[in-house]
Amino acid sequence: MFKQNFADRLNKAVKQKESHSVIGLDPIISRIPNFIIEEAKKTYGENPKGAGFAFTQFNKLVIDAIKDNVAVIKPQLAYYEVFGEHGIHAFWETVKYAQQMGLLVIADAKRGDIGSTAKAYANSFFRDENNKWNQNKDAVDALTINPYLGRDSLEPFFNSAKEINSGLFVLVKTSNPYSGDFQDQKSIDGISLAEKVGFLINKFSNEHLGESGYSSIGAVVGATYPEDMKVFRKIMPKSVFLVPGYGTQGATGKDVVNAFNEDGYGALISASRSIIYSFESVNAQDHMAVKNAITQATIEMNKDINSALKKENKLIW
Amino acid sequence: MFKQNFADRLNKAVKQKESHSVIGLDPIISRIPNFIIEEAKKTYGENPKGAGFAFTQFNKLVIDAIKDNVAVIKPQLAYYEVFGEHGIHAFWETVKYAQQMGLLVIADAKRGDIGSTAKAYANSFFRDENNKWNQNKDAVDALTINPYLGRDSLEPFFNSAKEINSGLFVLVKTSNPYSGDFQDQKSIDGISLAEKVGFLINKFSNEHLGESGYSSIGAVVGATYPEDMKVFRKIMPKSVFLVPGYGTQGATGKDVVNAFNEDGYGALISASRSIIYSFESVNAQDHMAVKNAITQATIEMNKDINSALKKENKLIW
Repeated sequence: MFKQNFADRLNKAVKQKESHSVIGLDPIISRIPNFIIEEAKKTYGENPKGAGFAFTQFNKLVIDAIKDNVAVIKPQLAYYEVFGEHGIHAFWETVKYAQQMGLLVIADAKRGDIGSTAKAYANSFFRDENNKWNQNKDAVDALTINPYLGRDSLEPFFNSAKEINSGLFVLVKTSNPYSGDFQDQKSIDGISLAEKVGFLINKFSNEHLGESGYSSIGAVVGATYPEDMKVFRKIMPKSVFLVPGYGTQGATGKDVVNAFNEDGYGALISASRSIIYSFESVNAQDHMAVKNAITQATIEMNKDINSALKKENKLIW
Repeated sequence: MFKQNFADRLNKAVKQKESHSVIGLDPIISRIPNFIIEEAKKTYGENPKGAGFAFTQFNKLVIDAIKDNVAVIKPQLAYYEVFGEHGIHAFWETVKYAQQMGLLVIADAKRGDIGSTAKAYANSFFRDENNKWNQNKDAVDALTINPYLGRDSLEPFFNSAKEINSGLFVLVKTSNPYSGDFQDQKSIDGISLAEKVGFLINKFSNEHLGESGYSSIGAVVGATYPEDMKVFRKIMPKSVFLVPGYGTQGATGKDVVNAFNEDGYGALISASRSIIYSFESVNAQDHMAVKNAITQATIEMNKDINSALKKENKLIW
């Protein structure tokens, strides 16, 4: 169990690191540095177990590279599930190592189901405390979830998260080109689906407030629709926004400033490949060179966001 | 790679077994028969590895009990993820055993993400053929997915499924009490969100037709809203409906007949706990008694559905 409300832990860590960045850990076997691949092949062979080993080694390198400059990592479950049990092993090894290094971990799993099944997913990522067979389970600091099934698919997650002071980020408006297919559908009252989800989240968020005034129930709002961002910021003033779309998907610091409240808090900006594979463009070949490239890319991302915030008088350090 | 379109394989198996039932494999450690629990404790101890072992043993018993009377099983990923890598190991052991026993497997995972992440999820459940590290990967026959993120979150799944003749069931209208929170929201043109999803599925379904005239792209439509069912049946005439809500959630044979087309095909009725834990109410203690109870419950479910279909002149055997 974590000692403080997730939003409080998050805001404290963000301020300490002077960074609103979240680094996505999306390991792809064909893009992992050669020296790790060779070690994996030698140790386990070119198979799922070897791939899981390579993921863990690479993630530890990334975590070492970024830990002084960011507060949060976000492993994307899809990339781990590709290698079945060995990928899941690598996922939890990554969670443990990141937390030991003082980072918060958001599991990007976008789960969604109903009743006792939702509770089982919550147990999977948080704690499973009434289960004697699962006593020493690790827990992530936060999880992304999908609202399509309605409030009774969200409440089991909210309740489980609260018990251990974890957080949740509910999908509201995603960053992909066709996110509007359903999310932008306006109902008769002129309100879009994404806005309806936002109103429901805001209702729940008030029951999960930390001392900082922010809620442990946040929202995913893509950086690729900066005008919508202002609307969502008003609908959910107490929710932290997890903002994908920075970097590879094209958004920059100035596109994400609207995700922040006037107090300079309330948004986490997420980038994955543009950071963790930044070593490719400088052709880095060894541990130190790869690590340095990733550190450098992280520092630049922080600078870009911080200077955009400074222009808006939203910089809190 | 499977040899035939998923819908064709499914319709053939359904006819052969004279059953439209799908048995959900939702293993819960506290409800697994004692003799399996004792074996698990003795072999691995009361820990996640022991739980995974108990899941596999129980699922094999269930599969043995139902394999002559049903065509399809549906393991729900949430219950496996609770035990991390050991749960995922049990999931894939279950998939393999079920397919060896001639059953089709729908992985109920409700995944949803965008672009290359959606592709990674598809690789996780189907094949990962361009990846040398993952050559001998098993594949499920079908997967459930969530449409909230829009068409570019669905297409990577559709494309991957097609390559290996697997199927997909997209969430349309779920069976839970608050499914209407978002799914029933009507837009200005009078069409609900669930119906919009249905129209999009129907568009894609035409590109994935089998020789039977049915598509390998199906839809999840809950049995608990039988009147809505008629509407969805019209919107998606070529999609097989995966229908949850039978049994524990209260729906019976007469509630699900509208899910079928006039030709007597087009729906799979899913039940989980009312079947796999049916041995509890007869206090069965040993392998044979547990197995017999599960077989009996399955036969009764088939009878209930088949007799309701017969009344509507929709019985195809």
